[in-house]
Order: sequence, then C-alpha cells, then structure tokens
Amino acid sequence: MAEPTMKKARVEYTHTREDFLKVYEVLRDELLNDECLSPANDSAQAKAAQEWFKEVNDYNVPGGKLNRGMAVYDVLSSIKGVEELTEEDIFKANALGWCIEWLQAFFLVADDIMDGSITRRGQPCWYKVPKVGMIACNDYILLDCCIYRILKKHFRSHSAYAQLVDLFHEVTFQTSHGQLLDLTTAPIGSVDLAKYTQDNYLRIVTYKTAYYSFYLPVACGMVLAGIQIQDDYLDCCGDPEVIGKIGTDIEDNKCSWLVCTALQVASDEQKEVIKAHYGRKEADSVAAIKALYGELGMEQRFRDYEAASYAKLDAIISEQTLLPKEVFSSLLAKIYKRKK
Amino acid sequence: MAEPTMKKARVEYTHTREDFLKVYEVLRDELLNDECLSPANDSAQAKAAQEWFKEVNDYNVPGGKLNRGMAVYDVLSSIKGVEELTEEDIFKANALGWCIEWLQAFFLVADDIMDGSITRRGQPCWYKVPKVGMIACNDYILLDCCIYRILKKHFRSHSAYAQLVDLFHEVTFQTSHGQLLDLTTAPIGSVDLAKYTQDNYLRIVTYKTAYYSFYLPVACGMVLAGIQIQDDYLDCCGDPEVIGKIGTDIEDNKCSWLVCTALQVASDEQKEVIKAHYGRKEADSVAAIKALYGELGMEQRFRDYEAASYAKLDAIISEQTLLPKEVFSSLLAKIYKRKK
Ligand SMILES: [Mg+2]
Ligand SMILES: [Mg+2]
Ligand SMILES: [Mg+2]
Ligand SMILES: [Mg+2]
Ligand SMILES: [Mg+2]
Ligand SMILES: [Mg+2]
Repeated sequence: MAEPTMKKARVEYTHTREDFLKVYEVLRDELLNDECLSPANDSAQAKAAQEWFKEVNDYNVPGGKLNRGMAVYDVLSSIKGVEELTEEDIFKANALGWCIEWLQAFFLVADDIMDGSITRRGQPCWYKVPKVGMIACNDYILLDCCIYRILKKHFRSHSAYAQLVDLFHEVTFQTSHGQLLDLTTAPIGSVDLAKYTQDNYLRIVTYKTAYYSFYLPVACGMVLAGIQIQDDYLDCCGDPEVIGKIGTDIEDNKCSWLVCTALQVASDEQKEVIKAHYGRKEADSVAAIKALYGELGMEQRFRDYEAASYAKLDAIISEQTLLPKEVFSSLLAKIYKRKK
Repeated sequence: MAEPTMKKARVEYTHTREDFLKVYEVLRDELLNDECLSPANDSAQAKAAQEWFKEVNDYNVPGGKLNRGMAVYDVLSSIKGVEELTEEDIFKANALGWCIEWLQAFFLVADDIMDGSITRRGQPCWYKVPKVGMIACNDYILLDCCIYRILKKHFRSHSAYAQLVDLFHEVTFQTSHGQLLDLTTAPIGSVDLAKYTQDNYLRIVTYKTAYYSFYLPVACGMVLAGIQIQDDYLDCCGDPEVIGKIGTDIEDNKCSWLVCTALQVASDEQKEVIKAHYGRKEADSVAAIKALYGELGMEQRFRDYEAASYAKLDAIISEQTLLPKEVFSSLLAKIYKRKK
C-alpha cells in the first residue's frame, strides 16, 4: 500500500498551548496575504493598512486563556478517539478553535468600548491605545471578517461548510443579543433594583457568554467529527444519487476512517489485499477493497461507531446544565440524520 | 395543465419604492419573530430587547435612497427579462436588495461613530440619540447579523446559498478594508498633504463605497439569475450523479424556465401535451414532457439563452469603469462554468 496522503498524527501528540499558538501564526499570515491587504502595487498606503491589520490581530486575538479555542480539539478527540486523528483533523480542529478566539476578540474589543473599560488582559484596551481610539469600531468589524475568511479558506470544500458558517452566525447573533439584554436591562446611570432578578441575570449571561464559550466549541467539535466520519463512510458506501458524487477515496489513496479501521482489524492476509489494491485506479482494485470492507463488516462497524459517538455526545449534553439540552440535541439531530 | 405553483408576476408590475418597502416590513417582522427575540416566557426584559431591536432597524435601515437595494431587481430583470420573472423571483431579488441596505445601515452606524458625525438622513445619527450612545456599537453588530438571518431564511435551500453568503462576507471585508484605508491614510488630527494623492483617494473610495454600492447589487442579480435558470435546466436535463439529486420539477408542477419557455414556442397541439402531462407523478407523463422538450430543442434554447445572458452581463461589465473588470469576470466565470 502506498503511503496514505494524510499522515496520522504522531501518537505522542499532546495538545499544548504552544501547538495551538503555532496555528494562530499560520492563520494570521494567511490573512495578511489576502488580496486586499497585499496588493500588487506595493503602495505605502496599502502597506500601512496591512501593518495595522496585523497589529489589530496580534494585540487582541492570541492573548487570552485560549480555553475555548483549545476545547474544539478536546471535543473532537473525545468523539473520534486520539488514535484516529490525522494531522489534518488536528489542524482543522485548531483552525475552528481560533475562529472562536477571533469571535471572542471581536466581542471584547466592542464590549470594552461600550463599557468604557481601561485594561484587558494586562494591557490597555485596544480602543484606549492612543493612535486607535474610535478606529477600534472598524477594527472589530475586521476581526469578525477574519472568522469567515478562515472558514472559507479551510472549509469551503468541506460538506459541513454551510453548517459551520451558520453556526458562527447563530452564535454571533446570540452573543450580541446577550449584549443587548445586558445594556438595556440596566442602562448606565439608571439603577432599577426591580430588574436585578435571577431570571434576568441568567438570561443575560446565557446569551452573552454561554453560547460562544461553551456551546460553540462543543458544536464545532461535533460538526467536525460527525461530518468527517460520515463523509468517509458515504464516500465508499453511499448511494451516488443521494450524495451527489461518486466517491474516489479508495482510488485517491485517502487516509479515511474506513481504511484506518479496516487496518486495525484485518488479518495479515487481509492487510496484503489492502497493500495490493488500495490507492489504485483500476476497477478490479476498487472492487477488491470494497469486497474486503464487506468481509470485515465495515457497515456494521460504522453503525456501531456512529452509535457510540452519538452516545458520548449525548452524555456530554446530559451532564451539562449551563444551557438547555435542546440547544445541543437539535444540532446532534442535524448531524446524525444526514444521509448525504 | 394544473396551475404552476409559482405564479408569474403580473406583467404590469412596476418596481416602485413602495413595493420595495413592503418587503422590508415582511423581513423586519420575520426577524422580530426570531427565537431569541420572541421567547416563550414573555418577560419584560425580552420584550424590551425586542422593541429596541425593532427601533434599531426602523431607524437605520429603510430611510435611505434605496437605489442599491432596488438595483438587484433591475439587474435580475435585465438578465432574465421582465416577462420571465415570477413573484418568487421578485421577492428574492428584493430580499437580497434589502440585505444590501442592511449592510449599508450597519456600516453607516459605525461610520458615524468613528467620524463623530451629528446627523444622517435628516435625523440625529443613531449613536447621538440620547438613550443610545455607545450601545450603538452593539446595534451595528445586530444589523450585520440580520443579513445572514435573512439569507438563511430565504436562501438556505437554494443552490447558491454558500455563494451568496461568501459574497456578503467578501464585500463586508472589502468595505471595512476601505474604512481602514480611510482612517489610517489620514488619521484625524494629522494632516500630511503627501498622502492626498489621486491613487490613494481612488483606492479608498473603491473599497469603502464601490464594492457594496455597485458590485454587490450587480453580483446579487447575477447570482440569482444565473443560478435559477441553470437550476431549472439541470433539474430536468442534468446528470443526477453530477447534480446530486434527481430532479422533480415536472412532477412537482414547478413554474420553471423550461416550461415557461416551452409554452412560449409550443404549437397548440404541443400545449395539449403539456396540459395533459405536466405536474403528474406517472413516469409516462414525465417521459412525455421530456420528449416534448426534446422536440422543442430545449437544450439548444437553454444554451442560447445562457450565451445571451452571459453576453448581456459581459456588456454591463465592459461599460462600467468604476471597478476592475476582473472583479466581475471572476464571478461570471464561477456562475457560468458550474455543471451542478
Ligand atoms: Mg465589559
Ligand atoms: Mg459589557
Ligand atoms: Mg471525503
Ligand atoms: Mg462619515
Ligand atoms: Mg468615515
Ligand atoms: Mg429547482
């Protein structure tokens, strides 16, 4: 068998803050190389804008606790299993994690302006930096834009693209709704004790914090895990008329869930079949691999795996009490009912 | 033939500001009925947030010239032909038009804060309304969110959904890049005459105004027209393995481009075939309609129509000098090369 195109992550991979920060550098540099920001004509004006953009990001995005962003990896690995993760999985989980950090940065820059805050994470709030001031109002628009540029670059061809974009829009709306509740329940300068109730408080923090801090990382991990494994399965075994394409993972020598799992359970003889036929264009080879998948009961294994990961997610959802269970269940239903 | 499910627009339809404004009311009310904003528990807090949200929209969105928003209809009708427009086409064009107006409102609220402006459209700037102040920083986030809620509600099942969402993101990024250029080329309080060059000026206005004012309405009309006609064609004549589904427009009695065009060129006898078989589930009926489409040379008619609308768009693009031609041509290529 030729080397699968996506390397499995080294098993010794531990997910540290430093690993996560390396992904920030990659994403930030991709953003800086955007067409708008790095124009053909190397004007001083365009260069200044590019430098400003870099500073907006470096000042506001990577300096937090990074718990939320790193949690996407944790969710993905707890669903898929650490051994199942490819380097691409890890990168994608971290890229989604950074989208959450960008979302938080965007809201914090705005929040500090509205609250008239002075410092944040041990440095002056961005709008308090003398050269910045109200330019910060545009800078947080730019920070928000970064989320969708990252999603487009890394997930545009992914079957979950629209779902991911919808998810970030949904949570952005929920968070700004939370801010609205916060700002209008107790307007600055008007103290109305009747409004300081437990219910009001809970509603505010749920919307302004819990959706993006808690729901979003879990949802990102769920979408990534649920969709990738199903993609792999459907590529081989789905009805082309339903999934809208003829899968070619076998021919393309893809490191998919199916071949990884097959290798784990195959006898030496069966491994020889994979070695001989995987990653070949010939119809005979594709048929040999599909026959082997049949022998190994891959369909049932996929159903079991799907049921087990569903159960794991269901347990996570049942244990949490921060948000209504329906928030998660409806997402879960969307991911696990899909036939294409 | 039973009545097609989508009524053609009355030919006497004229596209007035009043018609356009009616669509605003529909969209605004849909937004107010959102789950966040109209919660089951009818708390005073949630009610106050809903009222605030309504006021943010009514104060900032519909009061402009509306040229940009109304232009989507003009572009669509000039590509598709006024007689070809269904009521659904018109609604969708206007919904996209309003997304542009929402985008403008979002940027104007932010711009007025940054520029310290006093009035806008004959009334105080939103942030200058005494009760508002810096809450406006969150309100324009909400205005931005509305764009994607409208797109999701009305275009989620449309084959161009991701393309439309990408388009609005792209233009948002371009516009905020324009704002960044504007704010950093000539920072308030520092007058550097060397920076006031034609090139710098042109780059600023191109990004901060031309993309959303000029490119976006044309692009929305192009996407809507290009995709709808191709959808109709592919539904009947596309390869299911390529388009990812088996079309059922004939069975579903859909008012598609194909049946509309067929009716225009059919003899009385052929019209009887359509009457007898369109909108029926039986395989014989579907086959009869497809055979008739063959007789009428619908494939060639579609190719001609596609070529003609491409030529029209190409002419629009060549005549305009505001933006580089590639801006449009690359979009055109994306729309017209698609096979699914
Ligand atoms: Mg605060
Ligand atoms: Mg606050
Ligand atoms: Mg795949
Ligand atoms: Mg201004
Ligand atoms: Mg300005
Ligand atoms: Mg259709």
